[in-house]
Amino acid sequence: MPKVLVPLAKGFEEIEAVTLIDVMRRGGIEVLVATLNEYNEVEGANAIIVKTDLHVSSVSVDDIDMIVLPGGWDGTYALADDENVQALLKEMDSKGKNIGAICAAPYALNRAGVLRENYTCYPSVEQEINLKGYQADRAQVVEEANIMTSRGPATALCFGLQIVKKLVSEEMYLALKEGLLATYCD
Amino acid sequence: MPKVLVPLAKGFEEIEAVTLIDVMRRGGIEVLVATLNEYNEVEGANAIIVKTDLHVSSVSVDDIDMIVLPGGWDGTYALADDENVQALLKEMDSKGKNIGAICAAPYALNRAGVLRENYTCYPSVEQEINLKGYQADRAQVVEEANIMTSRGPATALCFGLQIVKKLVSEEMYLALKEGLLATYCD
Repeated sequence: MPKVLVPLAKGFEEIEAVTLIDVMRRGGIEVLVATLNEYNEVEGANAIIVKTDLHVSSVSVDDIDMIVLPGGWDGTYALADDENVQALLKEMDSKGKNIGAICAAPYALNRAGVLRENYTCYPSVEQEINLKGYQADRAQVVEEANIMTSRGPATALCFGLQIVKKLVSEEMYLALKEGLLATYCD
Repeated sequence: MPKVLVPLAKGFEEIEAVTLIDVMRRGGIEVLVATLNEYNEVEGANAIIVKTDLHVSSVSVDDIDMIVLPGGWDGTYALADDENVQALLKEMDSKGKNIGAICAAPYALNRAGVLRENYTCYPSVEQEINLKGYQADRAQVVEEANIMTSRGPATALCFGLQIVKKLVSEEMYLALKEGLLATYCD
C-alpha cells in the first residue's frame, strides 16, 4: 500500500487538504496527516479544525512514497518556513520520490528548490514564485518528472485522482472517478 | 449574516461536509458545525476527524436560516435516526426555512417527510428513498421550494455555491465561483 504524507500548517485550505486525503484513502493509499506544531490538531483558513496523526518531525523519507502539500497562503508560508518540511522536500526530491502541491503551495516547493520547469498553481501565485514555466492554461494538474502541481480548491478532486492513478492504478483511478461523480476531471 | 447549521454524524462524507462549510464561510455565512454525540469532534467515513462547535440539541430553529446535511451512508443513517435532527428538519420545513442535503443525505430528509417531489441524490440512493421525482439527469443541484439537494462528492463545491447564491447574493456567488476556480459549476 503506497504511503503519502500530508503536512497541515495553520491556515491550510480545508477543501484542498480534506479532498486530497479523502480521495487518496478511497484509492487505497495510506495517508499520514502531520502537524508542524505541538498539538494533534490544526486549524484551517476557514476555521475548520482537523485532527492529525503525528508530528512531521517523526516522518522519515524512507517510510513514504510521496508528500503532498495543500494550499492556503498562511499554511503555505508556514510550510515554506518549516525546517522539517523543507528538509523532507529536498530529500524526497534527491531520491526521486514523488512530491505534490496545490494552489499556493508550489511556493513552498520552490523555496526548497524542487519545483520543475513546468508547473501550475493558483493564478497570481506564479508572481510570488517568479520562475519561468508557469502553465497559464486551464490544466487541472501539471506533471513533470516527480513533481505534480495543481491550481486550487476546484481542482483538488481531480488532483487527488491523478495521484491515485500515479501511485495505485489506472483501474482504481477510473473506478474512483465514477464513484465520486467526477465527470469534469480530465 | 445568514446562519447555517451543519450536523455531523460519525461516518459523514468529508469532502462534502468540509467543502460545504468552507464555501459557505467564504461566502459570508456563519456556519455552526454540530455533533450528535457527547464529544466535540466527529470522525468521517475516511477517518478524518473534524472538531465541532456545539451539540445539535442546543440549536433552536429560530436561530438558523438553513440546515444542510452532508452524505456518507453511516452518517446519513445516524441523521435519519437522530431525534434532534429529525425534529429540526420538521420544524424548519413547517416554518418554510431552507433545508439542504447531498449524496445519501436526502434519505434523512425523506425520513422526516420534508423531501419535495423534485430531488436528486447519489445514484442508487433513490432506490432507498423510494419516492417518485428523482431527477436522474446530471443536474448538480435540484431545488424545489425550500428544499435543495445535490448528488455527491464532486458536486459539493457547486452545491455550496448555490447555497451562497440563495442566502447571500448572486454577486457573492459569482465572485466565489471565480475565486475557487469552479469553472464547471452551472
